[in-house]
Amino acid sequence: MQLLKDRIIKDGKIAEGNILKVDSFLNHQMDVAFFCEIGKEFKRRFADCEITKILTIEASGIGIACIAAQYFDVPVVFAKKNKTKNISGEVYKSRVDSFTHDKHYDIIVSKEFLLPSDKVLLIDDFLANGSALLGLAELVSSAGATLVGAGIVIEKAFQCGGEIVRGRDIRVESLARIKEMSKDGVIFG
Amino acid sequence: MQLLKDRIIKDGKIAEGNILKVDSFLNHQMDVAFFCEIGKEFKRRFADCEITKILTIEASGIGIACIAAQYFDVPVVFAKKNKTKNISGEVYKSRVDSFTHDKHYDIIVSKEFLLPSDKVLLIDDFLANGSALLGLAELVSSAGATLVGAGIVIEKAFQCGGEIVRGRDIRVESLARIKEMSKDGVIFG
Repeated sequence: MQLLKDRIIKDGKIAEGNILKVDSFLNHQMDVAFFCEIGKEFKRRFADCEITKILTIEASGIGIACIAAQYFDVPVVFAKKNKTKNISGEVYKSRVDSFTHDKHYDIIVSKEFLLPSDKVLLIDDFLANGSALLGLAELVSSAGATLVGAGIVIEKAFQCGGEIVRGRDIRVESLARIKEMSKDGVIFG
Repeated sequence: MQLLKDRIIKDGKIAEGNILKVDSFLNHQMDVAFFCEIGKEFKRRFADCEITKILTIEASGIGIACIAAQYFDVPVVFAKKNKTKNISGEVYKSRVDSFTHDKHYDIIVSKEFLLPSDKVLLIDDFLANGSALLGLAELVSSAGATLVGAGIVIEKAFQCGGEIVRGRDIRVESLARIKEMSKDGVIFG
């Protein structure tokens, strides 16, 4: 998606430790008008997939998922990272290793919001080591629902996540794939 | 907002400890088409306020804020609960006491995304003890930005938050105010 690549080149910043900072438009400040273009592109790529639900993970996936959901006309469910008072009853649970936070955590979703009849599209802002996507995919599998694929805004193709996830026969559509990243900039591929 | 009250009566569930569960449409599964109606109502109430930015807090405020932002044509910034690798540089910080999670935590926002020239609308799903709103208001104040007010989906008017926040001359617009809540249901007021 050229519009996204141009935006990454214009506004992305590379910080130490292979961190691509896109927090001016994607995951801290959120350019909602731009999200609409992202949402339309996901819809174009997953048209005719009869998606019934979008599943994402808190926190930075939620905004993109909600805007995209308007083009699919389906609800969003977000997996939660902590069990709160507000979650009672039965949940599906899986494990995620966070690259950004340097820790492991469980994600959960209430069983009542993922049904065997659901055709689920995963949406997230980043694909790096693939752990979040695999965790979400496991929730879908636990529910007996159908996983249609994953829509990713930015894939760090120099990390192993894309290969691992696609190796499990999960369709991954990344709107920008970064092949190389250095202090001089990013190379898409 | 009658549509919201009807939805709370139809789909809300009251759990032990004065917890109103609206997770089938508001804060776990998210009915995005319904969020559009909420967004339009916030826009109606804050029309002509020349808002330049919507500020919310992760996680459950993000979806509502993003959908609402489309009607204001402004970006959303969400305050983060944990300092991650992705936040570097200077931040504004404030303290929040969570009712749901039974703990205190800091919220932060990058200084570059809240400017003295900003006219900020706060958006959140719930107003209960008011701590999250006050924390967000403090971030706005720290930035020297103008706080236009707060758009709340559900106010628990039997808790003290609304009174405290309004007592600080912050305009609060709640789309549904719950005066009483028991196992028999909710009474709006």
